[in-house]
Amino acid sequence: VSSRAGLVNRQVILARRPLGIPQAEHFDVTSSLVPALDPGQLLIRNHYLSVDPAMRGWVNEADNYRAPVPLGSVMPASAVGQVVESRSDHFGRGALVVGRFGWQEYAAVQAELVDRVVEPDDRLAPSLALGVLGANGLAAWFGVREVLRPSPGDTVVVSTAAGSVGSAAGQIAALMGCRTIGIAGGASKVDMCLEGFGFTAAVDYHSPSFAADLRAACPDGVDRYFDNTGGWITDQVMSLLNVHASVAICGTASLPVGDAAPMGPRWERRLLTRRARVEGVLVGDFREGFPDAVRQLTDLVRSGHIAYREDVSQGLDSAPSAIAGLFEGANTGKRVIRLVG
Amino acid sequence: VSSRAGLVNRQVILARRPLGIPQAEHFDVTSSLVPALDPGQLLIRNHYLSVDPAMRGWVNEADNYRAPVPLGSVMPASAVGQVVESRSDHFGRGALVVGRFGWQEYAAVQAELVDRVVEPDDRLAPSLALGVLGANGLAAWFGVREVLRPSPGDTVVVSTAAGSVGSAAGQIAALMGCRTIGIAGGASKVDMCLEGFGFTAAVDYHSPSFAADLRAACPDGVDRYFDNTGGWITDQVMSLLNVHASVAICGTASLPVGDAAPMGPRWERRLLTRRARVEGVLVGDFREGFPDAVRQLTDLVRSGHIAYREDVSQGLDSAPSAIAGLFEGANTGKRVIRLVG
Repeated sequence: VSSRAGLVNRQVILARRPLGIPQAEHFDVTSSLVPALDPGQLLIRNHYLSVDPAMRGWVNEADNYRAPVPLGSVMPASAVGQVVESRSDHFGRGALVVGRFGWQEYAAVQAELVDRVVEPDDRLAPSLALGVLGANGLAAWFGVREVLRPSPGDTVVVSTAAGSVGSAAGQIAALMGCRTIGIAGGASKVDMCLEGFGFTAAVDYHSPSFAADLRAACPDGVDRYFDNTGGWITDQVMSLLNVHASVAICGTASLPVGDAAPMGPRWERRLLTRRARVEGVLVGDFREGFPDAVRQLTDLVRSGHIAYREDVSQGLDSAPSAIAGLFEGANTGKRVIRLVG
Repeated sequence: VSSRAGLVNRQVILARRPLGIPQAEHFDVTSSLVPALDPGQLLIRNHYLSVDPAMRGWVNEADNYRAPVPLGSVMPASAVGQVVESRSDHFGRGALVVGRFGWQEYAAVQAELVDRVVEPDDRLAPSLALGVLGANGLAAWFGVREVLRPSPGDTVVVSTAAGSVGSAAGQIAALMGCRTIGIAGGASKVDMCLEGFGFTAAVDYHSPSFAADLRAACPDGVDRYFDNTGGWITDQVMSLLNVHASVAICGTASLPVGDAAPMGPRWERRLLTRRARVEGVLVGDFREGFPDAVRQLTDLVRSGHIAYREDVSQGLDSAPSAIAGLFEGANTGKRVIRLVG
């Protein structure tokens, strides 16, 4: 009989299929006993759970880069947790790891679902492995450095600039010598872009003068655009693209998911006349570069060159409504759920 | 007194500003005396004039990659002609050259407007320097080889596949080992794609079953798309893009020109979920590679590996209606106007 006999695991289950943004009522919180481990498995006690805009796409039935989450299964999510039992040679008991452990208190998983070990660090919270030192920071890192590849002096525009990915993207571009223009919703997020994340300028897309403000912030046009929204915000940036400009589409927060795409102005002539490039970016395609990028990001965060914000809620019961909160712009910084610690 | 004293030059002048596709009534044909040459200038007698879809964009006042042609000036165009008088050290009398000489019988131009010398060749008509051995073939060459960079076995779709650029693009992709799918308007152009240009399959966008036909021709999806149309034809191809697909926008024949873009389904989510790339391509950006590409294209045309078609009309008076003809799909192959020879 192992030490965890009779352990109860609380889990967030996708119970109903949403059409669009998932709300609290699409999930159930259930309890079950932790199963016995198979050879090669780990039992993880989750400390922090991630909440990501991409989850909207995962739970809808529309065309996406992965199959929809099946009804009745645990909501997939990245999490930071501690190995409390191991039947794997790769990770011993006590190790702090980040991986695809789902929205639950305990995860009995194959060791392959571990993305990396989180080294203890006095100054860096382990939850950062879900944000600036995890998928968010890595999406910014590879989106800016490998896809956009700006030159010093370039004007780089970032949408959702006060968010976890956008704030990192702006700071990485600034470290490359670029002028960085943040797009965010509301005066307090604009302030955060300027004061917290060092954008050269920031504009509020809630403002009726947004289009003119953006144009004024980009007097030499736009060379690179790190896009997390799509839609009408993106249309305003597209109209300012310079010759040989590049756009990285890293998120589509302003667009509905669904198989019928919403309508918008066609980009073809703008792309042709400016010889511009638009490219979709998923961080998972850059997996081979993660270890080195995490090392560099860790150094930049430790040395204060990259700032971040976290928005932490307490307890598994805060998970079901958390995705909807992201799309309401309610959070400031990376949204994580603390279970332990 | 030079040998050309009193020579009358007939010219096609942009007389009225079109809104959209220029028709015959937007041009006047006028006569004037050939001017005396300044130092560094050449007098060219034009033999063949080019007619290009891009001319629509040049004469409209809308945003484009070059300033609109001023009213009252000679219509710009590539042409093949013979140097009949030279005050330049670079080209002697008698040389056959291709360059930006305009829609006129004689052009008094700076030697810099010559793109290259056309070597006499028993088997290759000099007019090919305007088509498969000129901007059209070069757009296909660089668009496929430098921008799309397909791998052997890739499914490559080409729109306006029976046209001068599209037919070359399909054949260049086939030489790289790709499955090539042509999109053309009408049964005879579909036949031309299959019989004349060796496409693996070809589909008729006039057919009510176009979307299903295209899907059936691309059972493994679309890896690369060489696009000359934009608009609803392109939307059908976009819906079939594979992961890491690439699209080169080389023309927008199906779209109006104008500062207000027409509406269409937004591509953002498709590009993101497929990590696909869309890029505008103008052949002029590849100027440094022209000499080598012309040599290779010449060898491929001479050896029969790249077939072409020309649609030749006689005389300067056929020019004013020629652009409109392109957009009606009236021509088969590269449209040129013969003045001499």
